[in-house]
Amino acid sequence: MTTFLQKTSNKDFFIFSFFLFFLSVIPTFSLSAQEEATDEDAFYIKKIHDAALTKGECHLWLRYLTKEIGARLSGSPQAAAAVEYTYQMLGNLSLDSVWLQPVMVPHWVRGETEVIRIATSAMGSVDLDALALGNSVGTGKQGISAEVVEVKNFEELKQLGSAIQGKIVFFNRAFDPTQLNTFAAYGGAVDQRGNGPSEAAKYGAIGVLVRSMASGLDDIPHTGGLRYKDGIEKIPAVAISTNNAELLSSLLKQGPVKVFMKTDCQTLEDKLSFNVIGEIKGSEKPEEIILIGGHLDSWDVGEGAHDDGTGCVQSMDVLQILKHLDYKPKRTIRCVLFMNEENGLRGGREYGEEAKRKGEFHLAAMESDRGGFTPRGFTVDGEKEVFAKKFPLMRPWLSLLEPYGLRIKKGGGGADISPLKKQNTLLIGFEPDSQRYFNYHHTHADVFEAVDKRELELGVAAMTSLVFLIDKYGLD
Amino acid sequence: MTTFLQKTSNKDFFIFSFFLFFLSVIPTFSLSAQEEATDEDAFYIKKIHDAALTKGECHLWLRYLTKEIGARLSGSPQAAAAVEYTYQMLGNLSLDSVWLQPVMVPHWVRGETEVIRIATSAMGSVDLDALALGNSVGTGKQGISAEVVEVKNFEELKQLGSAIQGKIVFFNRAFDPTQLNTFAAYGGAVDQRGNGPSEAAKYGAIGVLVRSMASGLDDIPHTGGLRYKDGIEKIPAVAISTNNAELLSSLLKQGPVKVFMKTDCQTLEDKLSFNVIGEIKGSEKPEEIILIGGHLDSWDVGEGAHDDGTGCVQSMDVLQILKHLDYKPKRTIRCVLFMNEENGLRGGREYGEEAKRKGEFHLAAMESDRGGFTPRGFTVDGEKEVFAKKFPLMRPWLSLLEPYGLRIKKGGGGADISPLKKQNTLLIGFEPDSQRYFNYHHTHADVFEAVDKRELELGVAAMTSLVFLIDKYGLD
Repeated sequence: MTTFLQKTSNKDFFIFSFFLFFLSVIPTFSLSAQEEATDEDAFYIKKIHDAALTKGECHLWLRYLTKEIGARLSGSPQAAAAVEYTYQMLGNLSLDSVWLQPVMVPHWVRGETEVIRIATSAMGSVDLDALALGNSVGTGKQGISAEVVEVKNFEELKQLGSAIQGKIVFFNRAFDPTQLNTFAAYGGAVDQRGNGPSEAAKYGAIGVLVRSMASGLDDIPHTGGLRYKDGIEKIPAVAISTNNAELLSSLLKQGPVKVFMKTDCQTLEDKLSFNVIGEIKGSEKPEEIILIGGHLDSWDVGEGAHDDGTGCVQSMDVLQILKHLDYKPKRTIRCVLFMNEENGLRGGREYGEEAKRKGEFHLAAMESDRGGFTPRGFTVDGEKEVFAKKFPLMRPWLSLLEPYGLRIKKGGGGADISPLKKQNTLLIGFEPDSQRYFNYHHTHADVFEAVDKRELELGVAAMTSLVFLIDKYGLD
Repeated sequence: MTTFLQKTSNKDFFIFSFFLFFLSVIPTFSLSAQEEATDEDAFYIKKIHDAALTKGECHLWLRYLTKEIGARLSGSPQAAAAVEYTYQMLGNLSLDSVWLQPVMVPHWVRGETEVIRIATSAMGSVDLDALALGNSVGTGKQGISAEVVEVKNFEELKQLGSAIQGKIVFFNRAFDPTQLNTFAAYGGAVDQRGNGPSEAAKYGAIGVLVRSMASGLDDIPHTGGLRYKDGIEKIPAVAISTNNAELLSSLLKQGPVKVFMKTDCQTLEDKLSFNVIGEIKGSEKPEEIILIGGHLDSWDVGEGAHDDGTGCVQSMDVLQILKHLDYKPKRTIRCVLFMNEENGLRGGREYGEEAKRKGEFHLAAMESDRGGFTPRGFTVDGEKEVFAKKFPLMRPWLSLLEPYGLRIKKGGGGADISPLKKQNTLLIGFEPDSQRYFNYHHTHADVFEAVDKRELELGVAAMTSLVFLIDKYGLD
């Protein structure tokens, strides 16, 4: 590792290469504000990696969470089982405290039937690969039937105006494949799913079909949450597979298409559930909390493996690895498995509110909720002043993380930890490779087998390494 | 992209971060020797990426190569079909020349039977998940039966000495999971497969079992080539799955284990086959060839998807993308699909020899033979003087490649292009993420479905970008 410290005769060129993201963010930066990263740190980060790759328990935990428990929608018996299981597993780690934080969660259920049938002169009757969107109302027992109108965005919808009346709107804007990061492509399309139903209802639509939020073409429908706007009629909405979206679009080019929709979704009464929390108390500054977490709930299809079983078991394994290495943190390291990220964010909100009530201070909060793929680094967020002050203090660590292919750049933290932003917390999003995430996200395909053990474990190593550095050096 | 060129007030720190690998390799380096990378280049590299992600044909070609043709061992009808198919596909690209280069290849066949049966008092008779190693002799019709002796390395074998006589040796050294790059773990274990049979035969062993060259524990046996040493008896050798290796090892701790082996492998007469080649002639320096390639043959199980269907279709797609962009190269860009990498390297050798006979000069040769996963960069190799002179000239390009997560470092080029090393060629190995490669390598699991379309296409984009830079700036 001593070669890291060698100097080179040509400094100017090196500046081009690594800190592209930082350059535009922070004009100045003082090395003296921060102890320099040491060879000792490099040695310890190697130890963390070795332990994560040989003594990790995340893969076994994930197997149970996915194969034995399965999909864990808020309010479901499986969500309750996941609370119980992870509470027990954290309890086995000899932590200083493990507890459950109560939170009332929404209880949406898909129901039995999900039929989306198109009738065309060309092909006769075809059942589409479909999943009702989360939070959607059902169609009623008789179902609904109407002509389909395809649009790519809300502007087209507006221009059609009254022509939408009594129709079923089909939102069919695909991911932009030229976005390198698939989350950027998702961000460019997901308004159709989230807001499309209320936007369509404004003009008198009676139902909505949405092209699945997916990177490619296949037969897999992707569910996910919609948000009805107050004061606008709630109409049923369903995602169809990207292949079916292409089919429907091509049929619509030939002539009118009628669709029959029948779903039984309903929203039941709120249910009591829990965030699951465990921590190692800090030895010097226990009042400074470093949070790591993921969300324990998932949608009700597949097994909630990459979303977000992996984030939960990785966060648990960070504590397990620190205990295994007999690391005594200066600060409090707390693992939080949030409930209800998918359709309400109640767990994250309740956590943030209680932290405020109790006057807790979270120095940093890191969420893993982008899948269990090979780690590429971290994205960092925070209130303007917090970010400006703390982000530069992470720079000396980059030389320690770079050999593991890890970068740190500005970007989102995570939904569950977002309420902590206003409490002067530095938010950190763990960033794995994004290419395959939207093959699985919110689908029947998001199962244990889609997760690679080494990729998962390397995520634990990356997360633990950054937690170690924050704990050791602080952010002051 | 202009932010790349901004200066920063603290140069010293930046030096730590990115060029760790370079620092120890090249003590000095002169920027003036090379035109600086420009914003224009950044724009063109973005164009290349957009085209690869929207106009690529690699995924369709791979589907045919894997699903319609399948495994393509040298000398097999499938290998011949792959030659024909890729020759036709290259023929469709309006290249300046497409041709076949004849080469005689070994013709090993697995045969019908493959039984590896252990008999123990504890478990009775168990058939192991096994695949004969490539190039192995068969056991004869009666099979062989003997007690198993487990060793971890050749040193242990030597110490056992005459105790090996008449036994079946079981090489059971696992991958080192703490190696970040799985190819390093492979490199640390593969002597058992390549040289183990002859090493064991030296001491009178009659057969060999080898723990599969795999990153994790599963039921999938991995075949791969062995090399018999001249003058030592050829004994049959078989790979067993890592789960079975663990089972066998635990049984051996309880007492002696006998194994029955029966395989029908044989080596038939050499067969005529071909390297498949297509090129775009350079407009200014046609005599400087930039080669891109992969190997068309595969082992005889699975579909040869990641090894190395992906490398072939990526190399073909580099030409297709350049044609699509109407790029007129200064230098000759040549795609070579090599035959017989897996069990002979005859294609690579013949290519190198003919290049020498013809006095051709390959400025650079790039091979893609590490799977079709998310690109991480390139490894570069060459004769000492060639490397010392040319490698530094790539540095100004790093700022262009870094936004795509690509690095360039010292490392191997590729088996097929290795004969060009002595011809003053700079060898370049395309380097994708390595974590999942040894889940599939040489197995029934190496199928089309194991390849992600975007990951594959991003590889094409990375390869094309570097080819573009070499073509534009040369390496002088």
